[in-house]
Amino acid sequence: MSRLSLNSKTTNAWSLSELILGCRTAGIEQVGLWRDLYDGADVGHAGRAVADAGLTVTSLCRGGFFPTDDRDVRRARAADNLAAVDECVALGTTVLVLVCGGLAGRDLAGSRQQVADAVGALATYADVRGVRLAIEPLHPMYCADRSVVSTLDQALAIANDHPVDTVGVCVDTFHLWWDDAALARLPEIGRRIAAYQVSDWLDPLPDVLLGRGMMGDGVIEFDVWTRAIADSGYPGPVEVEIFNQAVWDTPGDKVAALAKERYERLVEPFLG
Amino acid sequence: MSRLSLNSKTTNAWSLSELILGCRTAGIEQVGLWRDLYDGADVGHAGRAVADAGLTVTSLCRGGFFPTDDRDVRRARAADNLAAVDECVALGTTVLVLVCGGLAGRDLAGSRQQVADAVGALATYADVRGVRLAIEPLHPMYCADRSVVSTLDQALAIANDHPVDTVGVCVDTFHLWWDDAALARLPEIGRRIAAYQVSDWLDPLPDVLLGRGMMGDGVIEFDVWTRAIADSGYPGPVEVEIFNQAVWDTPGDKVAALAKERYERLVEPFLG
Repeated sequence: MSRLSLNSKTTNAWSLSELILGCRTAGIEQVGLWRDLYDGADVGHAGRAVADAGLTVTSLCRGGFFPTDDRDVRRARAADNLAAVDECVALGTTVLVLVCGGLAGRDLAGSRQQVADAVGALATYADVRGVRLAIEPLHPMYCADRSVVSTLDQALAIANDHPVDTVGVCVDTFHLWWDDAALARLPEIGRRIAAYQVSDWLDPLPDVLLGRGMMGDGVIEFDVWTRAIADSGYPGPVEVEIFNQAVWDTPGDKVAALAKERYERLVEPFLG
Repeated sequence: MSRLSLNSKTTNAWSLSELILGCRTAGIEQVGLWRDLYDGADVGHAGRAVADAGLTVTSLCRGGFFPTDDRDVRRARAADNLAAVDECVALGTTVLVLVCGGLAGRDLAGSRQQVADAVGALATYADVRGVRLAIEPLHPMYCADRSVVSTLDQALAIANDHPVDTVGVCVDTFHLWWDDAALARLPEIGRRIAAYQVSDWLDPLPDVLLGRGMMGDGVIEFDVWTRAIADSGYPGPVEVEIFNQAVWDTPGDKVAALAKERYERLVEPFLG
């Protein structure tokens, strides 16, 4: 069975029904879901629809956004993260990806500590419910506003305080491709890897938020990164997750087919 | 004497004469220069004009842009870097800042090796002429197009192959603020620090290239970074270098005065 998983953000204009139908058409058997795909609808219904179609949900995005200096906001976010864990259960996925959140004030070290504390506070509930947390280091250009966890080392520093099957990391090529220290460390940390996501770095970067490219359209060495993932022993899915307005403006069926083609040519051969 | 140095990019609309006059008006005694300030003019004349005004040139930007797969381009760039060393001598500065250049092809490790080789090839000439090379790690968002040297660790890995007074590093808060490993390492590497540059990270980032802010307008902890610089024993200047269209559209006198005021309030007190 293919390890390819199509993340719902890649075909962002698709509804859940369209995603299900589109994956069937493209011959894709796994999906990663963002929560906005069922916003306002019943998550249990969403989970049944996906399962009835024979699709596996490889992860849910996202929990996180922990740092804040406002106690009420912190409590609301904690509640939202507990809800995200419940939604994982309803969707039948065991992985909740954490985008940890940007700075609280100007206190970077304090904000990172808040992330560590919040992951600790969430981990037991997630574990009891059978959900593994995947801390995703985001590219350093998002450090102020989206994730104070910028490097694999920083993610591991938090994850390593917990059992390996409770808290892992999400390795995303777009965020980490520049970091030779991360690449070198992958083979040693295979059991900590909870998710592997791929998209490309376009040069020039068309947009800070929506500038990710389809694999092969940018500069990332997917052979190098995927071999390191294979060397780590990571046995899980490979999610194609692309934030790009031009991709989003393209008909979903074309995008899904292209994602599959590029995955099979540029990633799969190096999975070992 | 103040350790403040005004980098010419901060008042980008100013000619060399305006920069000299503006520094006198603002009471600033040191400048960092970009080569475009005297493009097409005689660098010896520029050097004399600066010296006659009693200004010290703390660094020249920039050498570098090394990686390329084209042999002719490589030779042309090598010649340009030798010329940059000569210009340092003409300007009376002992520091040449290196923006090392982006990817050649998709080969990141190979591109970094090209940088290491090119620095090695330039170091002897620079040393003989009394010029120290300052490898500047640039923010990882520039890894593809401007500098494959993204972290302080990567810069040090190259610099450490050379005598400490031949090849150093340039620490710029905008590029490194997110990197706790860099911050932790500063106190041990004081003799490698050839330049300290300050500007702020604005949130949200208004532009990838021209989004740097005046100190205090963004999220960087200048007290934390400057204390670490002080702990390192670095005795040199502090250059204010800001790439920002809004700053560039502001009258230079206002910018220079504001840079001095912010430096004196947010940086200088922590220099020890």
